[in-house]
Amino acid sequence: MPLQLAKTAAEIRQAVREARARGLTIGFVPTMGGLHEGHLALVRRAKEKGYVVMSIFVNPTQFSPGEDYEKYPRDLERDIALAEREGVDLVFAPDANEMYPPGDSTFVEVTGSLTKGLCAPFRPGHFRGVTTVVAKLFNIVQPDKAYFGEKDFQQLQVIRRMARDLAMPVEIVGVPTVREPDGLAMSSRNAYLSLEEREASRALSQALREAQGLVKKGQTDASAILQVVRDRVSAQPLVRLQYVEVCNPETLEPVSSIEGRAVLAMAAIVGKTRLIDNIMLEAS
Amino acid sequence: MPLQLAKTAAEIRQAVREARARGLTIGFVPTMGGLHEGHLALVRRAKEKGYVVMSIFVNPTQFSPGEDYEKYPRDLERDIALAEREGVDLVFAPDANEMYPPGDSTFVEVTGSLTKGLCAPFRPGHFRGVTTVVAKLFNIVQPDKAYFGEKDFQQLQVIRRMARDLAMPVEIVGVPTVREPDGLAMSSRNAYLSLEEREASRALSQALREAQGLVKKGQTDASAILQVVRDRVSAQPLVRLQYVEVCNPETLEPVSSIEGRAVLAMAAIVGKTRLIDNIMLEAS
Repeated sequence: MPLQLAKTAAEIRQAVREARARGLTIGFVPTMGGLHEGHLALVRRAKEKGYVVMSIFVNPTQFSPGEDYEKYPRDLERDIALAEREGVDLVFAPDANEMYPPGDSTFVEVTGSLTKGLCAPFRPGHFRGVTTVVAKLFNIVQPDKAYFGEKDFQQLQVIRRMARDLAMPVEIVGVPTVREPDGLAMSSRNAYLSLEEREASRALSQALREAQGLVKKGQTDASAILQVVRDRVSAQPLVRLQYVEVCNPETLEPVSSIEGRAVLAMAAIVGKTRLIDNIMLEAS
Repeated sequence: MPLQLAKTAAEIRQAVREARARGLTIGFVPTMGGLHEGHLALVRRAKEKGYVVMSIFVNPTQFSPGEDYEKYPRDLERDIALAEREGVDLVFAPDANEMYPPGDSTFVEVTGSLTKGLCAPFRPGHFRGVTTVVAKLFNIVQPDKAYFGEKDFQQLQVIRRMARDLAMPVEIVGVPTVREPDGLAMSSRNAYLSLEEREASRALSQALREAQGLVKKGQTDASAILQVVRDRVSAQPLVRLQYVEVCNPETLEPVSSIEGRAVLAMAAIVGKTRLIDNIMLEAS
């Protein structure tokens, strides 16, 4: 079947109803477009299970004032071609009016530790915008499973929390980060980087990997691990570290020593581009 | 079929899936128990359409500090007997842990004019508690239609807004207020009233009806209408008016003159019991 493109919730509901009537499991991959191998890995996971719906919507409410909403990469034709090649069945590309009708005034918000640290203080309103739009998309698509990249680890945990707390009838599936050959995590925002900045950005994933290696060798002290990351990143004059934290993977609260698993998460500004990355640490 | 009682979301999902597979439309009547004729009118409306699910859950998050959460009428056996007599197919009576699992931290909130005036300032957090629990219940029951009484007019409009904004796949149906023979709007809280207070409470609906009569005769000035209500209610020493407003029925913003339809809404304290009521005004 060729890919079907829909602009309205009504069309999506109709198409999903038909797919479900054919006995198919509905997998959902929400994106903001600017598709890269990370998104395509989500599609491949979803495709194992049945019918795949992808949304392409640059959601205004998850951008903070002064962020890159206006210049965020938008190329629907290219994205659709990539989606079709991977076997996406249905693309939902609504405009902002479809997602935020006149008078819209409802928000879905996860409170507490998950939305307090890491990216939250640097992106006011971001996670509220994410949970609100994802709740809307879930209600429109009504998927059985929804796929999110572990690159946006905090987002993934916030969405898991929302889905569990609100008893949403969907399973949230996290998919490992896809990386460039030199380690840089795939991101639509990598397109903003100049050649020099792109080169310097390798420091992020390298620092994370170095920290992971230390933990494998027995280091469990979070402050020692954070120092290694800071040293590695500060060696790159083009990269300005915004935060780096070692956190409990469930609560995202900072931990001082690693017992079991912990997530090492960071954000950095490279030129004018904000990049994030994370890696799982496991005490041996 | 006899009424089925379920305590868990999983049982509800299973029962609703089976009903839907039999081609039935799913109608949902969320309640806090303490059933009265108002609730039963919701059930009768729902019953016209097919399979009826009723929830009975005294939702802690919609009570403000110092309100009547502890003493709210709870008599599950009586409620189930009444529900069964009206043909309810499935009762969902979860305990608080089922609705608010450990670590629960997600809220659904309608912002703006709908949750600014009328009851909102007197019941901090109330509407956020309502929308959050109703969102959870909708996700568990996944009804085609959900029925709410017009007695709680602000609640009805807030829920309509939430459902529309979040693209929830459910139709919200408002059902006219059911009244005692003397006009008092049915409410679980009427059970708190002493005989004297019960008698005095007639003033609420009488004042609303008097105001409605004035509008029918051509009065369109909101302040004149409000004055009539205040005068009528203040004649009853046992009744203390909390607010009375003439509002646009869609936005719930106060209006100064009545053009088309307006809702006249009030809250009053009778003894220790808080009562609300409203009536639709239509300029002739």
